[in-house]
Amino acid sequence: MSRYWSELARGLSPYLPGEQPRIPGLVKLNTNESPFGPSPMAIEAIRLAASDTLRLYPDPQSTRLREVLAEYHGVVPEQVFVGNGSDEVLAHAFAALLKQSKPVLFPDVTYSFYPVYCRLLGIDHEAIPLDGKMNVRIADYRDRGGSIIIANPNAPTGIALSRAEIERLVSMRADVPVVIDEAYVDFGAESATPLIHDYSNLLVVQTLSKSRALAGLRVGYAIGDRALIEALTRVKDSFNSYPLGQPAQAGAIAAIQDEADFQQKRSIIIENRDNLTASLIQLGFDVLPSSANFVFARHPSHTGQALSAALRERAILVRHFSGPRVSDFIRITVGSKADLDRLTDALAEFLETPPLM
Amino acid sequence: MSRYWSELARGLSPYLPGEQPRIPGLVKLNTNESPFGPSPMAIEAIRLAASDTLRLYPDPQSTRLREVLAEYHGVVPEQVFVGNGSDEVLAHAFAALLKQSKPVLFPDVTYSFYPVYCRLLGIDHEAIPLDGKMNVRIADYRDRGGSIIIANPNAPTGIALSRAEIERLVSMRADVPVVIDEAYVDFGAESATPLIHDYSNLLVVQTLSKSRALAGLRVGYAIGDRALIEALTRVKDSFNSYPLGQPAQAGAIAAIQDEADFQQKRSIIIENRDNLTASLIQLGFDVLPSSANFVFARHPSHTGQALSAALRERAILVRHFSGPRVSDFIRITVGSKADLDRLTDALAEFLETPPLM
Repeated sequence: MSRYWSELARGLSPYLPGEQPRIPGLVKLNTNESPFGPSPMAIEAIRLAASDTLRLYPDPQSTRLREVLAEYHGVVPEQVFVGNGSDEVLAHAFAALLKQSKPVLFPDVTYSFYPVYCRLLGIDHEAIPLDGKMNVRIADYRDRGGSIIIANPNAPTGIALSRAEIERLVSMRADVPVVIDEAYVDFGAESATPLIHDYSNLLVVQTLSKSRALAGLRVGYAIGDRALIEALTRVKDSFNSYPLGQPAQAGAIAAIQDEADFQQKRSIIIENRDNLTASLIQLGFDVLPSSANFVFARHPSHTGQALSAALRERAILVRHFSGPRVSDFIRITVGSKADLDRLTDALAEFLETPPLM
Repeated sequence: MSRYWSELARGLSPYLPGEQPRIPGLVKLNTNESPFGPSPMAIEAIRLAASDTLRLYPDPQSTRLREVLAEYHGVVPEQVFVGNGSDEVLAHAFAALLKQSKPVLFPDVTYSFYPVYCRLLGIDHEAIPLDGKMNVRIADYRDRGGSIIIANPNAPTGIALSRAEIERLVSMRADVPVVIDEAYVDFGAESATPLIHDYSNLLVVQTLSKSRALAGLRVGYAIGDRALIEALTRVKDSFNSYPLGQPAQAGAIAAIQDEADFQQKRSIIIENRDNLTASLIQLGFDVLPSSANFVFARHPSHTGQALSAALRERAILVRHFSGPRVSDFIRITVGSKADLDRLTDALAEFLETPPLM
């Protein structure tokens, strides 16, 4: 710290992302990345964007990308906002919409970046406890708070609400902006995007980092009522006019257009998740029902920390969170079949159970 | 506007970037882009980064890029911060350093994004008038304000302060953080980076958008005392952990390493600027002495708006700003020799003077 820091900088408690080591042979199941590469069309589009035209600023409005996303989601481009990863989109949504005079509400167990944004932006928040089965209970969001954000599926639990439940929330709280963070929605949950036609208080945030396997490119987006998108755009244009470079815009356009690749890869991840869940249960784990590309699991005889450490000794990274209710668990990304086999073998060895068939 | 907007969103007056039309045959001299493509090594590095590893998150600390920048500037990586274009780096500097209880000071004629950041971040500012020759007068920054930001060379004037003058400022105001925005420094001004070893209140911001011809990739950075860099990092990690994708990190590393390409292209731009200045003077223009890749020029018989409109009719874009003192001027990017010839021919035609030899 130095005397030149702003009071704001002094008061921050930054988000700690999962580790990104580049160790050969490491099984990396800690940051919910795809085991597959992105669409070959996206790779080709990025290669083509690597040209002399990089001397020019990119389209500040990402017009073509917003058109492609609009077509994909059945909306118009004025209902689409894009940013440098969904983390940036969320930050702008906190500033433009969720910062109200009353606190923003979100579950006590959820994406740990939400309270970090609140600290940065001077927003009060109230954490609403999940129920005993780690579910979000919509009724708890009635009659309180000035805005709401829910991750659906929730992280790190992986548990999803149905679209009908989301609709109940946005209609019950038509008085406040509601953001649904759908980073993991493509792995088996119902997206709330069709609801935006009926609810002008609903903003849905998605990312290309998970189901489109483009974590390394940094593209996220939001779908919502034009007025909500306009608020995000005003914040963006007060922060950085050109959030997406030409390679990012080109790669994202191609990825969204490659429906076959998307469907094929996400089906395999869903299948791998279901197999992983079955294996973990066989090993004695309690596994929450996941609609995401990760599972959240605990073992009756071992702490989350012990499990995480045992796996790390075997060159397998998973994510462990401290804090009440979650510290018993480990969060395991659904990787390739080979990686998940290594994981379950390592767990079997550690738990001294016979290897799985 | 809708009732769901935050008070913050309601109060914003976003920055308006220069137009980015993609009209074939257009001579685009409005956003200070390079007439040359980036280093071929940078293009190749981006192509190589377009691969299956895009499924992985990028290095959140951009370690290798910070090492390369540190070596280039004779500092250590802990003295380097990188972001998604220098606009994002500046935004974080406003939040982490320039937001103090007393107003931030900057010239009344300067980069028009500065007051926009202030509005977004709730920072008071005081605009210090340039002197009669459009120069920044260091003495005016004594005994007032809680922080200072100066663009050097200044925009849109192009006029530079010497390193000795910058040193006078940072030593005279050792009580406050001072940011020097060196977006255009490589076209003939002296960088303040060597001063960071002696002044713990100095942060220097640079970009790869101009002299490295990578506006389309979005990479900017800051050099300063470790504690200042740590403050920026805390803000970044409260906003977006992964500001630079893999293509951006790879392309930026290669661009910084290609010194020969950098030197060759910037020399030509400096030569073109000096020729452009001479031609404009011959056409009757008053041209401010520029150390940037643009010139700021006015004509005794025509308003800036009229000149800008006349050029636009001839498919040539330059930038015109409204407001006292600057509205007489047009800002012309130093493009290729061919583009500048078209510009001076068009001006000669409009001014009804004989074409230049």
